[in-house]
Amino acid sequence: MSTIQIDCTLDYEVLSPTLFMFNIAATMNEYQLVQNEQLTLTPYYPYEAYSLGSPANRSIRFAAPEGALQIHYQASVQLSHTLDHPNEVGEIPYLSLPPNVLPYLNPSRYCESDRLGRLATKLFADAPSGYYKVKAVLDWVYENIDYIPGSTDSSSSISEVLLQRAGVCRDFAHLSIALCRALGIPARYVAAYAPGLEPDQDFHGVFEAFLNGRWYLFDSTRLAPVGSFVRISTGRDASDAPFATLLGAAELVNMAINPIDTAVNNTPTMDWAISTSVL
Amino acid sequence: MSTIQIDCTLDYEVLSPTLFMFNIAATMNEYQLVQNEQLTLTPYYPYEAYSLGSPANRSIRFAAPEGALQIHYQASVQLSHTLDHPNEVGEIPYLSLPPNVLPYLNPSRYCESDRLGRLATKLFADAPSGYYKVKAVLDWVYENIDYIPGSTDSSSSISEVLLQRAGVCRDFAHLSIALCRALGIPARYVAAYAPGLEPDQDFHGVFEAFLNGRWYLFDSTRLAPVGSFVRISTGRDASDAPFATLLGAAELVNMAINPIDTAVNNTPTMDWAISTSVL
Amino acid sequence: MSTIQIDCTLDYEVLSPTLFMFNIAATMNEYQLVQNEQLTLTPYYPYEAYSLGSPANRSIRFAAPEGALQIHYQASVQLSHTLDHPNEVGEIPYLSLPPNVLPYLNPSRYCESDRLGRLATKLFADAPSGYYKVKAVLDWVYENIDYIPGSTDSSSSISEVLLQRAGVCRDFAHLSIALCRALGIPARYVAAYAPGLEPDQDFHGVFEAFLNGRWYLFDSTRLAPVGSFVRISTGRDASDAPFATLLGAAELVNMAINPIDTAVNNTPTMDWAISTSVL
Amino acid sequence: MSTIQIDCTLDYEVLSPTLFMFNIAATMNEYQLVQNEQLTLTPYYPYEAYSLGSPANRSIRFAAPEGALQIHYQASVQLSHTLDHPNEVGEIPYLSLPPNVLPYLNPSRYCESDRLGRLATKLFADAPSGYYKVKAVLDWVYENIDYIPGSTDSSSSISEVLLQRAGVCRDFAHLSIALCRALGIPARYVAAYAPGLEPDQDFHGVFEAFLNGRWYLFDSTRLAPVGSFVRISTGRDASDAPFATLLGAAELVNMAINPIDTAVNNTPTMDWAISTSVL
Repeated sequence: MSTIQIDCTLDYEVLSPTLFMFNIAATMNEYQLVQNEQLTLTPYYPYEAYSLGSPANRSIRFAAPEGALQIHYQASVQLSHTLDHPNEVGEIPYLSLPPNVLPYLNPSRYCESDRLGRLATKLFADAPSGYYKVKAVLDWVYENIDYIPGSTDSSSSISEVLLQRAGVCRDFAHLSIALCRALGIPARYVAAYAPGLEPDQDFHGVFEAFLNGRWYLFDSTRLAPVGSFVRISTGRDASDAPFATLLGAAELVNMAINPIDTAVNNTPTMDWAISTSVL
Repeated sequence: MSTIQIDCTLDYEVLSPTLFMFNIAATMNEYQLVQNEQLTLTPYYPYEAYSLGSPANRSIRFAAPEGALQIHYQASVQLSHTLDHPNEVGEIPYLSLPPNVLPYLNPSRYCESDRLGRLATKLFADAPSGYYKVKAVLDWVYENIDYIPGSTDSSSSISEVLLQRAGVCRDFAHLSIALCRALGIPARYVAAYAPGLEPDQDFHGVFEAFLNGRWYLFDSTRLAPVGSFVRISTGRDASDAPFATLLGAAELVNMAINPIDTAVNNTPTMDWAISTSVL
Repeated sequence: MSTIQIDCTLDYEVLSPTLFMFNIAATMNEYQLVQNEQLTLTPYYPYEAYSLGSPANRSIRFAAPEGALQIHYQASVQLSHTLDHPNEVGEIPYLSLPPNVLPYLNPSRYCESDRLGRLATKLFADAPSGYYKVKAVLDWVYENIDYIPGSTDSSSSISEVLLQRAGVCRDFAHLSIALCRALGIPARYVAAYAPGLEPDQDFHGVFEAFLNGRWYLFDSTRLAPVGSFVRISTGRDASDAPFATLLGAAELVNMAINPIDTAVNNTPTMDWAISTSVL
Repeated sequence: MSTIQIDCTLDYEVLSPTLFMFNIAATMNEYQLVQNEQLTLTPYYPYEAYSLGSPANRSIRFAAPEGALQIHYQASVQLSHTLDHPNEVGEIPYLSLPPNVLPYLNPSRYCESDRLGRLATKLFADAPSGYYKVKAVLDWVYENIDYIPGSTDSSSSISEVLLQRAGVCRDFAHLSIALCRALGIPARYVAAYAPGLEPDQDFHGVFEAFLNGRWYLFDSTRLAPVGSFVRISTGRDASDAPFATLLGAAELVNMAINPIDTAVNNTPTMDWAISTSVL
């Protein structure tokens, strides 16, 4: 168990009246105890808060007129993980998958898994099953895709990433998700705060695979320790998990994200399978 | 109100042990009263039935060994529509959309609405709002895309359809959905039984737009009367609404779909906005 | 007849030994009399000059070590145009096209004309023929695509441009070329110096269509007067006409392009069809 | 040296007046001595014959009215190969490539080599140079792409082939060409008669790489012996080398291609590098 201190400030210059939706609050479930949470809009505008999905993404939306806008989020999040030995984390046969998990086998905007069947089979025909198969996917993505900021944009799906062999964290997650789905393993996208993220702090994009009756967290970028991730949003891919959605004209002029793992020594003693969500 | 008699038979030759999932049963909600329903597997294999989503898609899944397999579905479905005058069917402002509707603004596998913003704005800048705007989308799709069987396949998304200007019913639906989403109107895919479908009976793919606090049905192919559609599945796009999903090796050797509208004279007296789902 | 003074300076910072190929010299043919030409490399490296194609693109290539590199090109180019009345500029039937023109009907890297047949037919079924049909293509591109610097990159082909409805000069040219080819009119890419180019001076990308037994110049961006263009390179599309090709590591740190039309009053009195190449 | 007897018959049903262009005659160069050649149109229509490119593709074009059309081509082709020991077949440095070879480094319609730089470097960083590097490309394509008739169509480029990992002979050639170009080795497409082609006779699509100052032939499908190929067309990719181009409405109702290698025992004693073209 560890406690993450989150401090996140986004500064916008609103150029014309704009509608905003933000997903920057930590998910609340039994694995993430959110305490001392504070969300501040400066100047203050009345906003509507709601949550959506399972696990629930927490959003706020509001209208802002022209001028400077700052949204500041602070929280202390206590993480409880379920740590399983990889040997215990097997695949669930198709006929036994819970129905609510089935949509995570479908292709999605950025994860055209329907087109990857042959590649996935060729690459992972000899991979072991369960946790180790997802680990093989993760290793392949890490070894075959270069992490290059700016190499993709918000319209890039795995078809571009596979061709150009470069991407950013969301592309690493998308490609891993698509390969898992093509192999019959439900997989989904998670946006997270990631203490220790290299080389720069930002919202991080990682993924979960459904194994052993639960969702296990993975990061094919290897840029931050999985055990300190604080879940913000969960979805089929990044299109379901944007930190901000804007209708209007506004510029993000500054972003300061600063999650800190307060544990003195949090290095895991082995490569556990980490689960932070049953649903 | 009308009653549709559905009779649907799918014959497979199973070449090696195969897992099947079928979505061919009519949705049950307050607008579709399903009676005298019968689902028959020949030979019989024990299957699991479950439902998923909202409105719920009803599925069965089972394993079948080699040999012939027939699935036969019969039902009598009583349709109740909410008919609204198009003038009354307006758009809901973004900040007032129910949260559970928001995912239907996101791009999806076959509907890359995130890439269509400029085109949608150019095409429909002068269109009226609400029902009439969706009608303008539908008319544009009908007039600019040719309905050509075989012109697309299961991996074709709207980017191909827009380029080649041809497609089948699911492409017409996908393009309409994507344009609606790009215009800020939530839209989703509906698989349906469509009495009177021209030129051949088949599962039909149409779409719904969220207006006036409800979902309204549309068909940009104009190949069958909307008022007789029986909803089978609802989803973000066709990837969520396949009539069959197979893991294994099996061939569909025959498909006989025969929905009949038993109403003597069901021609609507005007172009009503038809809604069959609130959720 | 007019005379264009060209002054073009490119400054590179070579980071490691790099091979360079430049295409920045004006084409020499009977319509472009190139005088007082001077190409200067600073520091000087021995280079090989050669020409390729028809009309011939003039290139130089050489190896440069680390350090600053400047290439400076100056010339005075006397332009002679063939001006034809649009009414006289008709299409050549397929069976009468000169064989060497036929490759310009083929699709190319950035101009997937093979996929545009239906769209081109739909858009231009009622267009008049010959010069006026190409003019209709040009007008459609101008009206339907937004000129937005940075909206595409060097890998963008017309499939992206048509979807996002935005691009830069090379995209305008590519889309025009592809539509012409899909309509059975040979078309090709021309890189040019363009006096008066708005908003900023740069290498310009335009196109030619083969009509009436010759090649006629067009610019669907309308950003500069066609009658002052100085042809640099000609090819199937921009992949054949890069101003610079680098193998190694070097950065373009400054680019100063300054073509000046010395004619006092060069405004054409009518919309002539302008030809500057037979081959 | 060997002699190939070619007999090729194409039967069309012309549905409305149609313009035809055919490229089915063997290329004539010093490596292909074409004898006893006969091209028969039934019924006879006057046609124009011309040749284009280097080595020259030989074409005929004509107009045909409604009705049956047969084109029959017969020839006896004596092949002379230049056989070089692979050890002697090295790469030519960029600055020493003949200018007329440079366009074969450019990306083309079906070979988006500009997007493959990173993949090519990753895959072949440790490959030996020259002939062996092209051989490594060929082996990789053979091992990673499945030959599946019908898996692609005439609009499929290597971006689809790489994603779905399946294709036909032209896709194998295109992918090999694109990888070679991305590695700095000029490469081009060759359409050929291929005695012994498995599983069915058809026009074959293979490729050439420019090494050691000449063009060397390769076939990444391994479906027929390279030493018996008769060159029909040469181009940047398949868009330059169609066996037939039609403007109108006609159906190919029968195709009988029958090239026979008359040599009794033509099995090469080793894996020679085979060249049949300098230009």
